Amino acid sequence: VAPIAIKKEEKTYPDFKVTGFFQLDTAYFDQSDESIATLGDIQDGTGFRRARLAATGNLTERASYQMEFDFAQAQARFVDVWAQIKDTPFGNVRIGRFRQPFGMSELTSIRELPFLERPTTFALAPFRQTGIMLFDTAADEQITWAVSGFRTLSDNFGNVYGDNGGYGTAERITALLVDRGDCRLVHIGFDHSYLNPGRDQLQYASQDEIFVGQQPNLGPTGLSVFPIEGVPPFVNTGVFPVDQVNLFNVEGALSFGRGLIQSEYRWSNVDLPTGENVTVEGGYVTARYVLTGEVIPYNRTAGAFGRVKPKRPLDVCQGDWGAWEIAGRVSTLDLNPLFGQPGVPGKGRELTSSSVALNWYWWANGKCQFEYVNGQLNDPTLGDSDTNTFASRVQFDF
Amino acid sequence: VAPIAIKKEEKTYPDFKVTGFFQLDTAYFDQSDESIATLGDIQDGTGFRRARLAATGNLTERASYQMEFDFAQAQARFVDVWAQIKDTPFGNVRIGRFRQPFGMSELTSIRELPFLERPTTFALAPFRQTGIMLFDTAADEQITWAVSGFRTLSDNFGNVYGDNGGYGTAERITALLVDRGDCRLVHIGFDHSYLNPGRDQLQYASQDEIFVGQQPNLGPTGLSVFPIEGVPPFVNTGVFPVDQVNLFNVEGALSFGRGLIQSEYRWSNVDLPTGENVTVEGGYVTARYVLTGEVIPYNRTAGAFGRVKPKRPLDVCQGDWGAWEIAGRVSTLDLNPLFGQPGVPGKGRELTSSSVALNWYWWANGKCQFEYVNGQLNDPTLGDSDTNTFASRVQFDF
Amino acid sequence: VAPIAIKKEEKTYPDFKVTGFFQLDTAYFDQSDESIATLGDIQDGTGFRRARLAATGNLTERASYQMEFDFAQAQARFVDVWAQIKDTPFGNVRIGRFRQPFGMSELTSIRELPFLERPTTFALAPFRQTGIMLFDTAADEQITWAVSGFRTLSDNFGNVYGDNGGYGTAERITALLVDRGDCRLVHIGFDHSYLNPGRDQLQYASQDEIFVGQQPNLGPTGLSVFPIEGVPPFVNTGVFPVDQVNLFNVEGALSFGRGLIQSEYRWSNVDLPTGENVTVEGGYVTARYVLTGEVIPYNRTAGAFGRVKPKRPLDVCQGDWGAWEIAGRVSTLDLNPLFGQPGVPGKGRELTSSSVALNWYWWANGKCQFEYVNGQLNDPTLGDSDTNTFASRVQFDF
Repeated sequence: VAPIAIKKEEKTYPDFKVTGFFQLDTAYFDQSDESIATLGDIQDGTGFRRARLAATGNLTERASYQMEFDFAQAQARFVDVWAQIKDTPFGNVRIGRFRQPFGMSELTSIRELPFLERPTTFALAPFRQTGIMLFDTAADEQITWAVSGFRTLSDNFGNVYGDNGGYGTAERITALLVDRGDCRLVHIGFDHSYLNPGRDQLQYASQDEIFVGQQPNLGPTGLSVFPIEGVPPFVNTGVFPVDQVNLFNVEGALSFGRGLIQSEYRWSNVDLPTGENVTVEGGYVTARYVLTGEVIPYNRTAGAFGRVKPKRPLDVCQGDWGAWEIAGRVSTLDLNPLFGQPGVPGKGRELTSSSVALNWYWWANGKCQFEYVNGQLNDPTLGDSDTNTFASRVQFDF
Repeated sequence: VAPIAIKKEEKTYPDFKVTGFFQLDTAYFDQSDESIATLGDIQDGTGFRRARLAATGNLTERASYQMEFDFAQAQARFVDVWAQIKDTPFGNVRIGRFRQPFGMSELTSIRELPFLERPTTFALAPFRQTGIMLFDTAADEQITWAVSGFRTLSDNFGNVYGDNGGYGTAERITALLVDRGDCRLVHIGFDHSYLNPGRDQLQYASQDEIFVGQQPNLGPTGLSVFPIEGVPPFVNTGVFPVDQVNLFNVEGALSFGRGLIQSEYRWSNVDLPTGENVTVEGGYVTARYVLTGEVIPYNRTAGAFGRVKPKRPLDVCQGDWGAWEIAGRVSTLDLNPLFGQPGVPGKGRELTSSSVALNWYWWANGKCQFEYVNGQLNDPTLGDSDTNTFASRVQFDF
Repeated sequence: VAPIAIKKEEKTYPDFKVTGFFQLDTAYFDQSDESIATLGDIQDGTGFRRARLAATGNLTERASYQMEFDFAQAQARFVDVWAQIKDTPFGNVRIGRFRQPFGMSELTSIRELPFLERPTTFALAPFRQTGIMLFDTAADEQITWAVSGFRTLSDNFGNVYGDNGGYGTAERITALLVDRGDCRLVHIGFDHSYLNPGRDQLQYASQDEIFVGQQPNLGPTGLSVFPIEGVPPFVNTGVFPVDQVNLFNVEGALSFGRGLIQSEYRWSNVDLPTGENVTVEGGYVTARYVLTGEVIPYNRTAGAFGRVKPKRPLDVCQGDWGAWEIAGRVSTLDLNPLFGQPGVPGKGRELTSSSVALNWYWWANGKCQFEYVNGQLNDPTLGDSDTNTFASRVQFDF
């Protein structure tokens, strides 16, 4: 009896997969009188911070794509919309809208953040823009590198429309100085970005690392089309005229498996049309510790940390309670150097945020986060104020 | 010769499926002079009433999700966006945005309605809000129960933003008094909902059970961001200040397989900031009869009736004409008690709608509906008026 | 030993598949002084021209559906949203929103265009409207025919709302006079469309075959809800009152496998409320030649040309460079006859566009296009002007 020949099913292209996730946040704000005087009365809220669906798959054996949209902000906004070819003579090539290679916290997936939002230093990053990127790993995945050219500042749909400027570059290199796998890692990284913003306009702004309501679009008039109601920016330059910008960032992280210390410091050299050069800067330090012993894995192709997967996924009846993590973060961003500069409409302000978080990972793809943030805000004319936020998030992804 | 071991393919999580449907409606309006004086000249129209896509699947063996959006109203609105865990010690637990457990017609899927829209009593229901619900069946699926806590009034994207109030609960219990399966069923149910609306603002409004054009967002300023053009509300309190609301509902249904009589009555106790308590109420009776003999199935986990599936799906060449159903409904909603109350800007009005429908089920997932509605409207200052609507719907789902 | 019975897996309905694509365009504009005076200073731009996701599949053995939305224009707009039944006694029947059977370039998929946009004659076509269509092929797929009735002018979400008018029909028939397959084809076609536009309002407008920024909605007030910033229409009547319109179109194409000449000429008889009848007309000729020898295939069910598939998909390391095509097009559209007619607010204008394109097909589903357009614009009061556009597109689909 001859063996049955099992015909190997041939892979056909293109293929597709649907992925998605949602984050349901609740936040309560406790403001000092000075905070209310500076920021207005911030309203408590519950809402979907992000609700994304994506189609992703392969175009050919070596080319892949992602089309991801976020439905949580009244418009279906572009998230990752790109195609890429791997293993070209120039490394991997990606075209479309994607996160530019600048910043370890920026390149950590929003699904994997130990806090509800990225640190306030996020304001000083190009983040998602539309362009083309070369990237790869080297030295047996102990080094990652990426260079990118893009149009900026794009709106929420990936578009730049304007004759003046609108170009930028970003470059990043990371290395593992110590690489003992899940036992011990020392990561360092350097990032730079050059921006010649479209219409010669720029804005730096950030909330206090918690957000409910509608998220505004930043940037030149015409990019934002919706009335906005939500947590106001704590630091905010408003839209101001600019010649060009150079952003610099240094990254460092020390991992010992279940624990992690991660820090970045960055500064932005802003060339104003007056010829003056102003530098604004910010930084943060994060510490994480997984109480139940799971590893915070390092993603060697992204050069950033990934997802905590519970060893014993939540099953109350069996006495399995998932994974638990505590985390702390201090971040600071000082936009006061731009206050009073010609054409700068906003106050700028300086914000120092201190956060503690308790994260409860139910399964690999479901979690609940609790966070407290204290924001110390310095307004150049109104002085210091104090804002406390208590927030929670439920997140599911597939 | 050993038997070939067929390796059972292991189920992997998460998984996904894409589902969706669209409803294409056409409506003609015939108004008396009084109707035009009261409501303006309602324009005829054709359009997509709903066009929804959803990703749905399992997160783990016991957890599932749904992310559903409706593209038919200019914005991609949130429909069902939730995750749930089954068989916890507290029953099934659902978190996110979903239909609150209040009202048999509300918990009947919009895909399965014998008329184009739910009855006008729909105005007195919390419907989709963002929260957490416990629910299950009992007594061999002869009883369903659900309790839910939520934020309210949420916008079309599931968000509540405002310091004052914004909380609600809903509870529902149903039972089958007679349970002879497809032969005879007697269903009863009781529902309650407590609302402390966000920003202390409320609005009750309803069209005459037919709608074309853009569907307005109800509720406080800031939730609605689009200019609206469509069928105006027949009854409408406008946005008014409120302390709290208690909603009560009783359900009854008598099914004999191919036939069904279903009725609900509900009332809303509204506590105004003046200390006054006003009650508005409404009810409906629906009768359905499937001419071709198919059963209108009872969904034992939802406590509501489901989909008519033709025994002989439409195939003209073979002489198969699908399933045919006739239905009638009378509904009433009286908002006049709120007319003239302090802070109530609208007329309120009282609406009695009488409808007849002819439904042609082509296949399990394609149908065509024809409906005539006569709306008798009583305006507290303009008196009685008469509006007739002729409408049709084509619906396909997958 | 008995043979193993391989149970044929039964096909279950409904099923689904997700498809999608995006087009990332960049355009630079070089305007004469007269062009700037006539059109304003057109801004350069980069952006997603289209970014579409669709769910498509079968409802039953003989019925299928498509639900496609475009996320590129700030709102998730309806594209193809329809269901259809094949092989009825009346041919195939399609219900919903789809491209009306008028125009060979209109019925060529936007994924397969040799230029970035359809020719300016596109302004004189009903294109996507909501209705019902019968269509089929005949004479061994050497003939295609289609007749359709629809509501018009629908907004971007497929809706028509208004008592006055709002109806239209479209009819198309095509035939292959010579049919030697990939070797030689001669295609001819005739199209007609009758329009009684909703609210008795019409607008004819077109850019110069390149577009960046936000695409406006055309038509009566209330259909467009967004502020618009993008390439202005070169020819534009503005919204004007109209009784009815008859559109006529003739198609001709000569294919010799790797080469193709295609042309259409169309005219619109516009009955104004004044009783006057005005005719506007336009046409184009396109020539294409695939340098690498691939065939431009003829789609026998659509009566239009399809996708160039590289014989040697791009693989630089192996020396495979995909397929290369050159193309040229001249198109003209003269709206000046409407200038000065009662109620016509716009200038009309006459536009003659000359384009050359170089298309690089990487794989079957990835390509890059380069195009130069020279637009000669005649304004009835400002005279002639000259606009040059250099543009590129990257497109991936799945």
